[in-house]
Amino acid sequence: MKVQHYTDTPSAAVEEAPGVSVRWVISDKDGAPNFAMRVFDVAPGASTPYHQHPWEHEVFILQGQGVVKGEKQNRPFSEHFVVYIAPNEMHQFVNQGEGVLRFLCLIPHV
Amino acid sequence: MKVQHYTDTPSAAVEEAPGVSVRWVISDKDGAPNFAMRVFDVAPGASTPYHQHPWEHEVFILQGQGVVKGEKQNRPFSEHFVVYIAPNEMHQFVNQGEGVLRFLCLIPHV
Repeated sequence: MKVQHYTDTPSAAVEEAPGVSVRWVISDKDGAPNFAMRVFDVAPGASTPYHQHPWEHEVFILQGQGVVKGEKQNRPFSEHFVVYIAPNEMHQFVNQGEGVLRFLCLIPHV
Repeated sequence: MKVQHYTDTPSAAVEEAPGVSVRWVISDKDGAPNFAMRVFDVAPGASTPYHQHPWEHEVFILQGQGVVKGEKQNRPFSEHFVVYIAPNEMHQFVNQGEGVLRFLCLIPHV
């Protein structure tokens, strides 16, 4: 059992995304057998990369607002929205608020 | 891509746990291939069952406070705590606050 505040896990800059940082709060290092939980902070005006990959995202917005850019449309979100990105789907999280955008993003071990 | 507020998913009572309800906000019904995201509400004074099972829990506390009871100890938590429960580990989430305890709990498809 692991029980701790999410800020007890150190934050690391995301190299390919200026203004974005990540905490791997549950990972294979904890013995998690299937998937990992990360907490992302996106500074005002910043974005995650517009990209795709073979694994899914399961996302919960903790604070802030913005859009998820996809191939066909931009989908707005705000606090306590849920976002599911399917495998191989193009996506980008854009902070359009005045404060930090913070969200959980879970992925399978790859 | 699915983008919606978590309350857009209907809430269901958890039969074996009075005062506990759940929303399956991302599941295999959305095409998620590996794991599911649920949002639990636990009323003041209520608890999830004290039990174990072969799958893990990856939990994020959205609001409220309480303890996770295990075989060896009770671990306190409050808002924005992360909880990892390993496969086959005994556990129970107990709401010890005055308001609703709300947390995300992700599990692999079983």
